[in-house]
Amino acid sequence: MRILLTNDDGIYAPGLRALRKELQNLGEVVTVAPATEQSAAGHSVTLAAPLLVTEVFEDDGNTFLGWAVEGRPADCMKLALLELLPDPPDLIVSGLNAGSNAGINVLYSGTVAAAVEAAFYNFTAIACSLEYTKNARLDFPTAAGYARQVVEQILARNPPRGSLYNVNVPPLERGPVRGVRVIPQNVSVYAEKFDRRVNPRGRTYFWTGADFDCPEPIPNTDVTALAEGFITVTPLQFDLTDHKRLATMQGWEWELRE
Amino acid sequence: MRILLTNDDGIYAPGLRALRKELQNLGEVVTVAPATEQSAAGHSVTLAAPLLVTEVFEDDGNTFLGWAVEGRPADCMKLALLELLPDPPDLIVSGLNAGSNAGINVLYSGTVAAAVEAAFYNFTAIACSLEYTKNARLDFPTAAGYARQVVEQILARNPPRGSLYNVNVPPLERGPVRGVRVIPQNVSVYAEKFDRRVNPRGRTYFWTGADFDCPEPIPNTDVTALAEGFITVTPLQFDLTDHKRLATMQGWEWELRE
Repeated sequence: MRILLTNDDGIYAPGLRALRKELQNLGEVVTVAPATEQSAAGHSVTLAAPLLVTEVFEDDGNTFLGWAVEGRPADCMKLALLELLPDPPDLIVSGLNAGSNAGINVLYSGTVAAAVEAAFYNFTAIACSLEYTKNARLDFPTAAGYARQVVEQILARNPPRGSLYNVNVPPLERGPVRGVRVIPQNVSVYAEKFDRRVNPRGRTYFWTGADFDCPEPIPNTDVTALAEGFITVTPLQFDLTDHKRLATMQGWEWELRE
Repeated sequence: MRILLTNDDGIYAPGLRALRKELQNLGEVVTVAPATEQSAAGHSVTLAAPLLVTEVFEDDGNTFLGWAVEGRPADCMKLALLELLPDPPDLIVSGLNAGSNAGINVLYSGTVAAAVEAAFYNFTAIACSLEYTKNARLDFPTAAGYARQVVEQILARNPPRGSLYNVNVPPLERGPVRGVRVIPQNVSVYAEKFDRRVNPRGRTYFWTGADFDCPEPIPNTDVTALAEGFITVTPLQFDLTDHKRLATMQGWEWELRE
């Protein structure tokens, strides 16, 4: 099996390296990932700048790892599938991200966007992320082991081409993982704060605050299950149409003047 | 009515200025928009850099227009709603974008992402974009007039708080608008090409190609209706869960080894 690995933390990120090691048990892994950190890049793509690409090797200097792209995660996926890979992959995995991608974070996430981009091209793709407790060290090797087990068990079901999944591993420092829950994305808002400051030249600026909590998560969603210590698996799709409202609205009459 | 206006082409973009003029017929308009062009920014947000903010005035130097933010469209929305606006707006409008945002472009679009961000906070938001024919000049004033009429007619239905819409105006240079279609988002892939080059230092780079066509659009979607000369209105939502597959997958049994 040929696996294409990417992420949004950058090709040298420890989460990617740990996941790569695990995925090598399942097949041949080639990496096409951003040269630098692209956290919260969402589904942005690069239109107005050139995408520089570099071959990257393992520390031994001989083992080919893949390509570093000076662009966004979605750029990496396009380039990998359309230009860089000699053969189409059987599976795309994105991660292991430092920090969970649950709830509306799914929309901010470069990790998830890379997987969504792969699904645009009808490839099966799995985004994997690891939640953490503030100031705790992330145990990527253990989390990558869990992610690999989830990936294996998804593949064992022979998912149709283009299937898209979002996997989150709970904070490992809080205790053992309680199991796997297949569960929808939470859609409720986060409580965010900005830190307002004035620069030495008198201009106002804001820093996005570090606290990012979901005060009222909807029960039985990825956000709550993750908080309860479960690995979450959410099948995703990328049709943003609100089909319920669509049906109602199709009865509306419109008037247009020039 | 208080209207918050944003976009992804930047606060000085002609599409925004044309739409602002039209929206002033409906209420008081305040603009919070990126200082520079942020096309294809998707739902990216700025975590690691300060967000500089500048008050912007009309050309007369006295009429307050709003705030320019050195960040992404979604940053603008967060800052507007959490920090900058003295009172919550009744409506958020994003656009008028130079170029349509139909099909999977909805996911690449900063224009749409700003509206989605507003909907996270349970505000009603409408993204508006204008498709164009290659090398034709965009007629923003006429298109903004159409967008305003659609906005008016949506508001006339008293949509519940948090309603989210994506509006596209067809290329005006191809003939008169044929009407309004309420229609789902197309989900089929675009045909994209990269231009491979080598820089003066011998490094490979790629330019994202200019052609971006949807070779096999699904019938009766935003992409086909727009091509047929209709204004498209698509109600959106931001739960990416694939609920059909979710139900099947909830029957799966999982095994985890430490």
